[in-house]
Amino acid sequence: MRTLVLALAAASLPTLAAAQTVASETPAAAASADAALESDTLAWDFVEGITTEVGPRQAGTEAEKRGRDWAVAWLKANGFANVADEPFEMETWVPGELHRAEIVSPFPQPLVVQPLGGSASTGPEGITAEVVEFANVAALEAAPAGSLNGKIAYIGHAMTPTQDGSQYGFAGPTRWVGAGIAASKGAVATVIKSVGTDRHRNPHAGGTSFPEGVAATPAGALSIPDALNLERMFDRAEGPITMKLTLEPRELGTTTSGNVVGEIVGRDPSLPPVLVACHIDSWWNGTGAIDDGAGCGIVAAAAKHVAAAGQPLRTIRVLMAGAEETGLWGSRAYSAAHIDEPIAVGLESDFGADRIWQFESNFRESNPDLHARIAAAVARFGVSNGTGVATGGADINIARDQKTAIIDLQQDGTRYFDLHHTPDDTLDKVDPVQLRQNVAVWTQVVGILANEPGPIKGE
Amino acid sequence: MRTLVLALAAASLPTLAAAQTVASETPAAAASADAALESDTLAWDFVEGITTEVGPRQAGTEAEKRGRDWAVAWLKANGFANVADEPFEMETWVPGELHRAEIVSPFPQPLVVQPLGGSASTGPEGITAEVVEFANVAALEAAPAGSLNGKIAYIGHAMTPTQDGSQYGFAGPTRWVGAGIAASKGAVATVIKSVGTDRHRNPHAGGTSFPEGVAATPAGALSIPDALNLERMFDRAEGPITMKLTLEPRELGTTTSGNVVGEIVGRDPSLPPVLVACHIDSWWNGTGAIDDGAGCGIVAAAAKHVAAAGQPLRTIRVLMAGAEETGLWGSRAYSAAHIDEPIAVGLESDFGADRIWQFESNFRESNPDLHARIAAAVARFGVSNGTGVATGGADINIARDQKTAIIDLQQDGTRYFDLHHTPDDTLDKVDPVQLRQNVAVWTQVVGILANEPGPIKGE
Repeated sequence: MRTLVLALAAASLPTLAAAQTVASETPAAAASADAALESDTLAWDFVEGITTEVGPRQAGTEAEKRGRDWAVAWLKANGFANVADEPFEMETWVPGELHRAEIVSPFPQPLVVQPLGGSASTGPEGITAEVVEFANVAALEAAPAGSLNGKIAYIGHAMTPTQDGSQYGFAGPTRWVGAGIAASKGAVATVIKSVGTDRHRNPHAGGTSFPEGVAATPAGALSIPDALNLERMFDRAEGPITMKLTLEPRELGTTTSGNVVGEIVGRDPSLPPVLVACHIDSWWNGTGAIDDGAGCGIVAAAAKHVAAAGQPLRTIRVLMAGAEETGLWGSRAYSAAHIDEPIAVGLESDFGADRIWQFESNFRESNPDLHARIAAAVARFGVSNGTGVATGGADINIARDQKTAIIDLQQDGTRYFDLHHTPDDTLDKVDPVQLRQNVAVWTQVVGILANEPGPIKGE
Repeated sequence: MRTLVLALAAASLPTLAAAQTVASETPAAAASADAALESDTLAWDFVEGITTEVGPRQAGTEAEKRGRDWAVAWLKANGFANVADEPFEMETWVPGELHRAEIVSPFPQPLVVQPLGGSASTGPEGITAEVVEFANVAALEAAPAGSLNGKIAYIGHAMTPTQDGSQYGFAGPTRWVGAGIAASKGAVATVIKSVGTDRHRNPHAGGTSFPEGVAATPAGALSIPDALNLERMFDRAEGPITMKLTLEPRELGTTTSGNVVGEIVGRDPSLPPVLVACHIDSWWNGTGAIDDGAGCGIVAAAAKHVAAAGQPLRTIRVLMAGAEETGLWGSRAYSAAHIDEPIAVGLESDFGADRIWQFESNFRESNPDLHARIAAAVARFGVSNGTGVATGGADINIARDQKTAIIDLQQDGTRYFDLHHTPDDTLDKVDPVQLRQNVAVWTQVVGILANEPGPIKGE
């Protein structure tokens, strides 16, 4: 099978010379990548282990600490050097225990709701008020000032699954800014249609924020079936719809989180390292399998496979960032702590565990030879050479802050927003075959980068 | 399109004469059935309405009462005669508010659980105990007497989606009898892997029972991802696994439920009626769209379409049974109340809203002409002539008690057990195209039956 794949891939390479270059410069890493495609078990071992033995890892809590301890032990057991849990301080929000929404009239029934990160508490007595419907953020923005006084705002949206995840930018504002806008117009609370593409009674958590000067209000996400039900109620009700909403999240104040790091030490410590990143925390409502246990498994497995093929020229540094979900606390802390230690290139895996389909870099023009060599090397895994400029993910702030090289290995996001930030983010959603394809592509790319003597960005 | 379908269907008919018989005896009903396939809105209106305006309808509660009131109003508004809510008494169980399971050690994390119908309460303090794993009921049965003293039993199973739903019989005992067997061996509580085929954090509710002389214990269903996680914990833990389980269901004692009935009155009241049935109650955790709002919509829509084609010879009686889920209370009460009023034939729709693919009767041998005519008439909708003997569903006890004619219009159950008894049983799971095919087939079959002058069973 692989022979056929290689033959077909070679036919579509920009030049056969490029393929030969890859083969000659990193034959062992290429062989490791091919082997990972068939038989990697490391990434699965990581994501199975952390989801089973730790489970949810809400940022800043003791559960996240158990997750970091687990990852530290795993990295050490797998031969990584310089493993550490680098502490940082953060402001910590927790969801509380009681999340409840019910229609009081005219169609009494419970709705499934969960609090958004940053939501205020309703108190145990809840808030009972008329609900006002907005189809989306644009409609909410058009509401007059004060028009929501004493009301609960409901904000909808429509979201289509997209391979590149781009509709997160289209529908995401409902969650990101909806509650803040509603509060600024007088709303006492907000419920949104979960930002997602599934049809299950599992709300999509995630952070929301309130503008400067606007006090946080209670804000919850209805599951999509519940939101659709509420929308039908608006179509059918002849009078106002009254909801009782009870959410009891709490701000814990300042707590300590940490960034887990570990290294494959390179032959030449004077060369800046290759930084491969993910995040170790998850939302409280799932077990953080696709977000982002799988990503941590992928990057760590790839680093180890590269090392197994022979000590690389450069150090490969794994960063499992803490507290990504509630505000990139770990990514920011890592950059602040290490800003004076140049990295060569940053890559992140944080978009699930489905197949990688596109490669992009931010050095296509500044280092076209390396860009072309990587593109040629990953082509046999079904990864195309994208035309955009890589900007990196949440966990590699340091790469942007240092204006260094960045690579994006774009995963298929078609079903990502069925699961993102939901209780359904569990191990059974990880496809072992696609997970191995991720490890294979990462092994190939990191193998090239870690053995590249010249500056990655070419500047 | 329909012309082509008819032409192809005719080619596969047992005899062309049979097709001509159908066309000649019930042309208006056949035309109504064809029209329903393209444009029925009644069934959708019913299931959308009751799920939106009432929602969950737990047997014996005021929510079920609101459901019956809603159905009575809908039947009257749609021109049914003799609409009534026939009361009966029942013993009522309610799930309570707090359902929680958590692993205390060695891998602390919450698991999603819901109580099974008939479960006892743990009290608010919960039960904390070691969990003992059984792969299935057979493994549990092999456990020695007393071996579960003080323990929580976990019972798994493996279940594959099946078009005919037959694996419910294979996996169902885990829920139906597992807790009772565990309790008889000393278990203080039981948790099961939900009996279902999905991978979502939504437990499958449903009733369980305890043998004579065995006191009810707390019994809950874990969602399937949580059950899989627990099974992995057993693989990974070096010592015992301790769980804290909190379930607070309550027995309300005797309450009043009811059976909603309505009729299309036939031209000859001396002939026994055609009974078409469904159930109006649902489990508390979903909105009862596929179980069984859709079924009620299908049978009522079909009855009305037959009437619209001309007053039928026989009366068509719609029975929307109360309290099916917790023990067929309504079906039994209906039979007891009406046992002396012969029905001609009973049919039930209670297996979701996906396409009907097979027709069976219990009069293939006793009335082969009618059986063949019905088979011929539904062939154009993709419904085959099954080889089994129809036994009817839960809501037509009276047909079995009277030993009268029974027809099964078998729906595609491939995805039924993804949704059955879960929070995910919501309107968005109903496919309007498949729902209309159900209405079309029912309209065709009921149209023939209600205009059949001779005894349906042929005896």
